[in-house]
Order: sequence, then C-alpha cells, then structure tokens
Amino acid sequence: MNKRPNERTVNDLFLSGNLREYLQQKNEASLRAIPNSQLNLPLHVGPYHSLYPVDKHFDKTDKSFGYLATIFKCVSNLDGRLYCMRRLEGVPITSGKFLEPIKKWKLVDSANVVKVYDAFTSKAFGDLSLITIYDYYPLSLNLMETHFYRIGNKDPELITEAILWSYIVQLTNAAMEIHNKGLFVGEFDPTKIIVTNKGRVRLSSCAIGDIVEASKDHNQFQNGNQKVEGETDGAKVIDEQKKDLERLGGLVLNLSKSTTFIKDSSTIKPMEIIDRLTFSDEFKKILRYCLTPDSTWKHFQELLAPHILEVANGFENSADYMESSLLTEVENARLVRLLCKLDVISERPEFIKDGSWSETGERYPIKLFKDYVFHQVDEAGNSVVDLTHIVNCLNKLDSGVDENVLLVSPDEMTCLVMSYKRLKELVESSFRSLS
Amino acid sequence: MNKRPNERTVNDLFLSGNLREYLQQKNEASLRAIPNSQLNLPLHVGPYHSLYPVDKHFDKTDKSFGYLATIFKCVSNLDGRLYCMRRLEGVPITSGKFLEPIKKWKLVDSANVVKVYDAFTSKAFGDLSLITIYDYYPLSLNLMETHFYRIGNKDPELITEAILWSYIVQLTNAAMEIHNKGLFVGEFDPTKIIVTNKGRVRLSSCAIGDIVEASKDHNQFQNGNQKVEGETDGAKVIDEQKKDLERLGGLVLNLSKSTTFIKDSSTIKPMEIIDRLTFSDEFKKILRYCLTPDSTWKHFQELLAPHILEVANGFENSADYMESSLLTEVENARLVRLLCKLDVISERPEFIKDGSWSETGERYPIKLFKDYVFHQVDEAGNSVVDLTHIVNCLNKLDSGVDENVLLVSPDEMTCLVMSYKRLKELVESSFRSLS
Repeated sequence: MNKRPNERTVNDLFLSGNLREYLQQKNEASLRAIPNSQLNLPLHVGPYHSLYPVDKHFDKTDKSFGYLATIFKCVSNLDGRLYCMRRLEGVPITSGKFLEPIKKWKLVDSANVVKVYDAFTSKAFGDLSLITIYDYYPLSLNLMETHFYRIGNKDPELITEAILWSYIVQLTNAAMEIHNKGLFVGEFDPTKIIVTNKGRVRLSSCAIGDIVEASKDHNQFQNGNQKVEGETDGAKVIDEQKKDLERLGGLVLNLSKSTTFIKDSSTIKPMEIIDRLTFSDEFKKILRYCLTPDSTWKHFQELLAPHILEVANGFENSADYMESSLLTEVENARLVRLLCKLDVISERPEFIKDGSWSETGERYPIKLFKDYVFHQVDEAGNSVVDLTHIVNCLNKLDSGVDENVLLVSPDEMTCLVMSYKRLKELVESSFRSLS
Repeated sequence: MNKRPNERTVNDLFLSGNLREYLQQKNEASLRAIPNSQLNLPLHVGPYHSLYPVDKHFDKTDKSFGYLATIFKCVSNLDGRLYCMRRLEGVPITSGKFLEPIKKWKLVDSANVVKVYDAFTSKAFGDLSLITIYDYYPLSLNLMETHFYRIGNKDPELITEAILWSYIVQLTNAAMEIHNKGLFVGEFDPTKIIVTNKGRVRLSSCAIGDIVEASKDHNQFQNGNQKVEGETDGAKVIDEQKKDLERLGGLVLNLSKSTTFIKDSSTIKPMEIIDRLTFSDEFKKILRYCLTPDSTWKHFQELLAPHILEVANGFENSADYMESSLLTEVENARLVRLLCKLDVISERPEFIKDGSWSETGERYPIKLFKDYVFHQVDEAGNSVVDLTHIVNCLNKLDSGVDENVLLVSPDEMTCLVMSYKRLKELVESSFRSLS
C-alpha cells in the first residue's frame, strides 16, 4: 500500500480554481498594455517608460490634494520592474527643497504602507507635473471602490465587524511605522487606502501631502507670512501623530455608519452614532476611545492587543495557504524545463537525416519513450489521453528513478527494456550536444 | 518601448533558487517512502496506511509523557492526505472515556498549534498503543533540534532577541486559542514545539497529556483515591491557564539563558539570570512579568501589543512574498498543459501514416511551428537553444494572440504565414479529435 515517490495525482499538481484564476488575473493586469500612439502619453517620464493608465475611470477631473491627478503603471529603465506612477498637474514646485519630505518617506517600511521610491518634477506631459513612484499592486481597489461601488460585475463587499477589526489593526501597524520615522499620516482617506488582496489594506499616495504642503508653506512665506522652523516642527509632528488616532477613529466611524440606517446622521453626534451600531460592546468601546480627546496610541494598542493577535493568526494562515499552493506549483517549473528539453532534442530535421533517431540510432529509445508517454492507444487502436500517466512518467524521468519501462515500436517488431535512469542520461547527453 | 503582453523573461518565470530548493525538499520529504517489508511496520493502523518513521533518530528509547513514543507520517484511507501519527506504547487505556479530551482538542484552531484529528487505541503494533493523528509538516524540527543540535550539515540556529519576541507572540497566540476552548497548555516543552518554517512555531503533541492524565486519574481512583469532579475541574483549568504564563516564561528564560555564559546557572535565581541577559530592558521586563506570581494573561498581552503588531507585520510580508512567488509559478502550469497537448498530437505513429502531417496535410503548420519554436539553427546550421524564445512563443500560442509568424520548411521550399490565433485553433482541434 506504500505510495511510491513521484506518484502524485494530476489534481495534486495544479492549484485550486479560484486562487489560480485570481493570480492569473493579476498577471494579466500586470501585462496589459496599449500601443503608445493610442494614448498620447509621453514615451519616457524620467527613467520610467511604457505608461498605462490604471484608474478605474481614466477621468481627468479627479482631484487629489487639490490638484488634477492621474495614476499609471510603468516600467523602470533601471531594474525592468513595474511601478505605479502618480501624476499631479501644475503643483508649484519651484525648488528641489520642496521634495525633501520624500527622504523620510522612503525609509517607511511597513506591510500596510505602499512603498514610495521617488518624487520628481517632469515636463514630459507638457506641464510641470509632480511625479511620485510607488510599488504597483495589480487589481487593487481603494476602500471606497471595494465597499461602495460596483466594479465590472463585482458587487461591493459587505462591511462587517471582523473586517473593521482587521482594518484597524493594519492601519495601526501602518501608523506606528510612519510615526517611528518621524512622520504622521495626516488623513485616513478611504480613496487613498487600497485593498491589494482579500482583506489586506495599505496606505497609498504617501509623501504627496507633505510635498504639496511644503510648496504651500513656501508660497505663504512669499506672501509675507513668517514660517517658524526648528523645534516647533517637532512639536507639530507629535501633535499630528496624536491627531492621527482621532482621524483613524473618524474613518472607522464612517465605514461603520454605512452598516446601519441612521436618519440625519450628519446632525447626530459621533458618540450617539456609535451607540446605535449593531457591533460588539468591545468594538464600540475602542471606537469611542479613538475619538476621545486625550487618547494615546500606547493605550489604544493595549486595548487592541487581543485583536492584533487574532489578525496575526489570520496572516499566518494566509502565508501557510500560499506556501501549500506553492508546494503544488514548484513541480510544474521542473516539468516545463523537461518538456522543453524533450522537444528540443526530438524531431530535429538535421537528426532525422543523420540516422540517430532510426531504429538502430542512439536516440531511438527516446522516440519510443515519447510514444509510450504521449501516444498511448487502447486495444482497438484508439488514442488514450491520460494526463496523470503523462505527468507520472515525466516525474519519474526527471528524478531518473531506477525503474524499468518496456518500450515497444509502433509495428511491435522492436522491444526495449530501459530504466528511467538510463533514459534520463540519454536525454541529458542529447541536450548537452545541442546547447 | 511598450512591452507587449506575454513578453516575459525566463527569469520571471521561475522561482528564486533558495525558496525553490526548500519547497522541493519539503515535497521530497512528503513523498519519501520505504517498501513496507524493510520496516516491519503494520500495513494498517486504523484507517491509516503507508507508515514511515519521521523521527530524526528512529530511536525506540525516547520517552514522551512517560511512555515509549514514535512518530510516523502516514496516509489516510479516507481522504488520501498525509498525516502525522504519534504512537505511545502500553498506555493503560481501559475505557473509551479516557479518550474524551480529544473532543475539545479537535476544536482548537490556531496557526500556532498543530491540529489534532483523532485519538484511538490500536493493537496493530502487537501491544496496546495510544495513537494520535495530527497535521503533517515535512522537514519540521523541534525547538531543541533547531537551536541546539547539528542536523545533517545544518548548524543550529542562533537564538536572538528578535526570534524570542516572535516565539513569545506565537506561543501566546497558541495559548489564547487553547484557553478559549476551555483547555490549558500544561507544559511548554521545547521538544514538543516544532518549527515548521523559518521562524514559525507550533505546539505539537496536543491532547496526549490530557489522555495520559485521565488514565492515571482512573488508576488512582481504582487504588482507593476519590476523584473530585464537576466544578473543581473548572477551577483547576483556570488555575492551570494562569500557570501557563509562568511556564511560557520558564521556556523563554531557558532559551534566553543559552545566549549568555552564566556560571552555575542552576543555583542562581531566575530574576538574577534575567538581569544578566544582554537583551533589551523591555524584553527583561516582560520576561520578569511572566515569572511574577500574580501576573495575568490580559495584562501580559497589553505589554506585548507593540510586538504583536511587529510580528503580524512580518507575517503579512511572508504572505506577500509567497504570493509574489506564486504569481511567477502559475504560468508554468499553463505551459505544462500546453506542452503536453503539443506532444500528444505530434509524431503520433498513426498520424504519420494518414498523411495529416505531410506537406499537404492539415497538421503540417503545427510541425513547422514546433521546428520554429524548438529547433532554431544559426546561419551555419548549428543548433541554437534559447529557453526565452521557447517560453515566449508558447505563451503567445497559449493566449492565441493575433500576431503572425513565418513558418519555413527545413528544405526552405515551403513558406507559411500563420497567426498564433489560427495555430492555437489547429492545436485545439487536433487535441479534441484525440480526447
């Protein structure tokens, strides 16, 4: 009853349908491109090329931080990787000094913040644009799109208490790393938080706010206002970090509100709205705490601890699930290499001439083996296509196991007994002679 | 400069070396088997077969919970999956009632606890053995093996403060879920905590302790002792749950101790040992708290909160890394299917006879296409093996893109221009006619 090595069913070898489909959609989104001429976009923006708009609605009237904004995916000349490019039109950046906030933001390294790589100005679009470069997440939607809009034929996702706990933990993680780098979030804008995977959120558009702010400060200064620098900057950051907690509470409150019908919700006080939510008392308690004036991140994290643990448990499970899927997939890469090798050495016109594939030639066993693997027929001579048989044979050939196989010529006049080990050597030596 | 869809380099298509190797080793460990006759093991133990010992040293003198113990991997008759089987020899289980703890343990569902599925007694080994069935983790080592032994040519892994923080968070997660199900851990034994992946720990051997305890209680009862049941059981569990925190502290202290040279460490008080550790004050504070008599899990979690967040961030990154690896691998599964299809329809002896592959036959373009893909030669007629070219062509064929390819016969007497789209249709219809 012992299962032999290399005995795996075809189902073991392929991913389950949903995950495969989702991953392929991501790959396709990454590869999507349009001939440049149709888009009227610049060929290069700094070291980035192959621009392709990734907005759900390529609508130029969208405003972001007070400026017209568009988002592209693009390819870097430097490493060939895909990146996400955000363009803000006509930001009055008159000095490289305004771009300085990017230095600190580049150091932010969190699983819940979209990494920012670069910020520069460009005249490639015909105006003076502020360009910022981020990691690219194919198929990502922002929180508004995820929970409030119908995209294609996908209904908006229901907001539940479990999802909100997870968002709170993830956004807290993002905020803590941003604070650690001497920065603050500033705004938890649901159109600037993207969902990159089931339940995974990331703060996006980082650094832009600080750069736009720097250019504004400068203009005010030019209009006669004195900008106070130095220590007060540090005090301002600490104050803003404190305010981040209230802002996080505000976002969560707005998302929560949508789960209940509340008449005239704009005239009702936040604390009263919280009372009316159909969520657990613990959830309401923590949400109230966010919105309390003298709340601190430290105590907030303490209250949150059991839920952080729960969310961590979920991420551990995700990592395990992905790994178990990978375990089934790694074998395919080996099979691709082996199949390519077999096809490279088979049927070569020059070999057919030199007789090495004829019945007395050295490569004849490989020909018979391929018949055995791919061209099975039943007693009546009808073809039998059995992917399990094919994959099993290829796995054995790949491992070069010490098991014999009986090879019979189509006319049944020639019989050969040969081990997979010997066949593997034959394939390898044939391939080596070519490459 | 726009990259076309399906234009990917060969490197994009395969996993990075280390992860691939690690995953393949896991697959190989899962598949490893020995003909049954060589091991003198039973063919079946309950519904499980194909037993294979997975102890690092198949040593029968190991004792676990006071009994001789061995570990096997095995295959279930019911679902064909691999499981881990633990056998304890000669446990005096005289009634099915002793196995009852398994009911609660089966409900424990945590990313840091090895799931237990079943417990039963068996005479298959010739004695009365207690058999427990768990999830199987190939290549897993326990904490002792990971950090204190040289296994094969792998040096023991250094214990650092970062690793210990992660272990504390993960084992807290395990304990919280176990407590939630009305159970307690009982012992954080470094030989019963397994490392299933880089930095990932799981409590193993669950439920055995409670079953062995139940059999002991019964024997005491038979010897005249009165067992008190009911409410006191609940009180005992709460007390043991409290003690779990001290036990966790004990494990962490022992692991920490090994990082510093401490003379006569057995005669020195734990709190003094903590003082001498070269770890951060925060670490020492939390470790001291574990070992304080009136400590609570609730406050412990609060102290731990920032570190839970950090560990969660790490798991998010792991899940992302695994997913990005999967993205590169899913394409291979498609290529395997396509390559198999091509080989199934090519070179079939029966087709060679019927003329469909001859220069006027309907399948001739496929033959020329395979020459174009696999049998490229340079001007001098020498073979050129280019995996990138092969993979690009196959991807285009798989997507059936509307791009033409010039197919030339080896004697250069026949030229055909055909689109990948049309070629794909030809391949599909040829394959359909066979299957």
